[in-house]
Amino acid sequence: MYSQEIQSLMKSKKLKIGDRVKVLKDGKEFQGFLMPRIEIGDLNSLVIKLDNGYNIGLKYEKRLKIQKMGQGIKLGSIPSKKFSRKPGLPSVSLIATGGTIGTHVDYKTGGVFMVRTPEEIVATTPELENIVNMKTMLRPFTVASEDMNHKHWQELAELVAKELNKGARGVMVTHGTDTLHFTSAALSFMLKNLTKPVALVGAQRSPDRGSFDGVMNLICGSYFTGYSNIGEVCVVMHGTTNDDFCFAHRGTKVRKMHTSRRDAFRSINEIPLAKIWPNGKIEIGNENYRRFDEKKVVADTKFEPKVALVKSYPGSDPEILDWYVHKGFKGIVIEGSGLGHVPTGESGVKIGEFDQKFSWIPQIKKAVENGVVVVMTSQTLYGRVHPFVYRNLRLVYEAGGIYGEDMLPEVAYIKLGHVLGHTKDVEKAKQMMLMNLAGEINKETDPRSFLV
Amino acid sequence: MYSQEIQSLMKSKKLKIGDRVKVLKDGKEFQGFLMPRIEIGDLNSLVIKLDNGYNIGLKYEKRLKIQKMGQGIKLGSIPSKKFSRKPGLPSVSLIATGGTIGTHVDYKTGGVFMVRTPEEIVATTPELENIVNMKTMLRPFTVASEDMNHKHWQELAELVAKELNKGARGVMVTHGTDTLHFTSAALSFMLKNLTKPVALVGAQRSPDRGSFDGVMNLICGSYFTGYSNIGEVCVVMHGTTNDDFCFAHRGTKVRKMHTSRRDAFRSINEIPLAKIWPNGKIEIGNENYRRFDEKKVVADTKFEPKVALVKSYPGSDPEILDWYVHKGFKGIVIEGSGLGHVPTGESGVKIGEFDQKFSWIPQIKKAVENGVVVVMTSQTLYGRVHPFVYRNLRLVYEAGGIYGEDMLPEVAYIKLGHVLGHTKDVEKAKQMMLMNLAGEINKETDPRSFLV
Repeated sequence: MYSQEIQSLMKSKKLKIGDRVKVLKDGKEFQGFLMPRIEIGDLNSLVIKLDNGYNIGLKYEKRLKIQKMGQGIKLGSIPSKKFSRKPGLPSVSLIATGGTIGTHVDYKTGGVFMVRTPEEIVATTPELENIVNMKTMLRPFTVASEDMNHKHWQELAELVAKELNKGARGVMVTHGTDTLHFTSAALSFMLKNLTKPVALVGAQRSPDRGSFDGVMNLICGSYFTGYSNIGEVCVVMHGTTNDDFCFAHRGTKVRKMHTSRRDAFRSINEIPLAKIWPNGKIEIGNENYRRFDEKKVVADTKFEPKVALVKSYPGSDPEILDWYVHKGFKGIVIEGSGLGHVPTGESGVKIGEFDQKFSWIPQIKKAVENGVVVVMTSQTLYGRVHPFVYRNLRLVYEAGGIYGEDMLPEVAYIKLGHVLGHTKDVEKAKQMMLMNLAGEINKETDPRSFLV
Repeated sequence: MYSQEIQSLMKSKKLKIGDRVKVLKDGKEFQGFLMPRIEIGDLNSLVIKLDNGYNIGLKYEKRLKIQKMGQGIKLGSIPSKKFSRKPGLPSVSLIATGGTIGTHVDYKTGGVFMVRTPEEIVATTPELENIVNMKTMLRPFTVASEDMNHKHWQELAELVAKELNKGARGVMVTHGTDTLHFTSAALSFMLKNLTKPVALVGAQRSPDRGSFDGVMNLICGSYFTGYSNIGEVCVVMHGTTNDDFCFAHRGTKVRKMHTSRRDAFRSINEIPLAKIWPNGKIEIGNENYRRFDEKKVVADTKFEPKVALVKSYPGSDPEILDWYVHKGFKGIVIEGSGLGHVPTGESGVKIGEFDQKFSWIPQIKKAVENGVVVVMTSQTLYGRVHPFVYRNLRLVYEAGGIYGEDMLPEVAYIKLGHVLGHTKDVEKAKQMMLMNLAGEINKETDPRSFLV
């Protein structure tokens, strides 16, 4: 809600939210639509959506002049698009799930809602109908990404496989960004023998903002699915803060690395597979990828939900592992420090009884003895864990933990659920965890992949 | 241990580990010391430490010729240095704690040991005696950084304050790298009214390797403590993979971001305070820092150890919070997703009973009702959390959680222990958590601080 001053001004000028207005301030003129005050910010500033799409905040002061120019945009209604089908173009299916890319601001209440249909999502980006023939648009559920779990991943994998096997050249999934990389990893493991492009696309800014990134991400995602020769699950999102190009990140090597930037998604321990420009140019950045083919894909969605991701840090209470064992968990991924350390209570001069209370080794041993698969990863995110450099690393190894190579903790977590969904044999599960199933383990890391 | 072939070769030539040898292979000659096979690698390759300090691996083959040149280095002994004191130079104290920078390889057994005395650490870097007058060298304990906890931080803070108040211009602390950034945050909060430089210095490679980074880090740390006008706790480590310069990272804005690279430490949501070259040049990179002064510092080390850092992710079991509450924890930092989300089980079409099982909101509410301070941070690491963008964020806020601005999860964890060590009043603790105490909260983030 605006300040009392602005509310009075609006009343006296008979202005309503959504009206087209002209504002004069400090000798400058601004024309656009009067927006509601929906985000954090100065309640005493008018928000005007300019014709270039950007919002501007104009601090209220007595000298400011405002004039109503017309009724303006119809607020509260959701634009929708009847998508024209162009059979000459590559056939791509769209699956909408939820998230910022599918939100719509109700200017009457200021609330942000998730839109209901894929048609409403593509309405933001009419260019798409000249890029692909989007013959099927589905909405299995509309869920913000923080509320996704393995049931949603399973349903998505089934749908993607069905669309591809029915003839789609690729599938684009719109999704919230918070856990987009968990879903991309899950689909990478669940879509066995995938040889067609699957793009996960989201937005960091909502469609009511001038800085909405969904348009370019949808365009690049369409080129990726309709034209690239990459037969993998990729996250297709802004490469920089500008609208210049997107990256296609391998689904098992990508992570959201910023709360709000449009270029928040980054490949970790991997060079992005491709750069995609909104004019359709696709440049391969990493030759290590699966080539496009017309083979059938299998949705292999078995998943053990009793897996956990646990952080180990100075002062952390190791008995947390007992809790998971007691609750019947079958697998635990530990986010350790550095090369894969946990506190051991054994590492030096003046380690005493107090310090030994923090040791994770007895609890790891107990978990392993109870048939739990324990996988070590690193909270540094970049780099590779291995047990043979320092003595304390060997302690985890000797306790029965395995070291997850260069896998991200989140990816190791998803993979563990996938693996334990397929075997109850602990030794087999350990073996599978250390095999590269979907691009999640590289034997060598390209040094150029750090912080890019 | 070397392969059978190499062991036979050594026997026939009467060679011992540590001998000086000359090797002829493929028309090339190599001279150096025969090293043990201590790391992962090809057991059938001879490792020679060349005179330039680098180790080289030479694959064994029949044509290879090896010749003993002399007895070579005395193995198993630890070099030590009687440090010459130069009173004209700035007076700096050294506190050694443990970690790779203080390790020594025993070539007889191949084991890596922590050295015992600071003299043995500075012996790696004789240049130091021409930079600072290191009049006091202490070793309060020798503990690998994965085994550090708040007791060690408290002891360190006391010692650093004592040295500074006794007249040292700065203090350099050598430390393992795994949790170096936890210790730097703890010292930043505990050293009240600090106006002198405190450098935390470590190494990613051990002193027996040609790529040992400790030498340059110690040199840069000496310049930082002896000459810079920065009165803060900083992590001083390699800025790049080359030996060109170090960064001085603010102690509350830094994180280990790679398991093994020498430039693993990076500032997050902050530009590094300074660049330091090994020739002594110091370039300020960020004008927002506390200037050097001669004021007394207070070691304010009260700390509540019953605090936890918990990760929330798709499918995570929210009852983990009940466990911490039940165990008497006073504070919990949650690593949520994106802007500070947790699963809510409320966010859309087709959220059912199954999904609601994953909701963290009831457990957060219960923890808050039990007097636990709950602080939200983001697993993206970069960026800022806040509760006013999406409805699901408001749910955490309404349940009584607070949003930790642009603080790193690890730093929020240390800060919560510090704050709850000083007040049992929940409202006061919440206020303190949202105040900037030691550079851990920036009101604005420099966009150039992403992935640098």
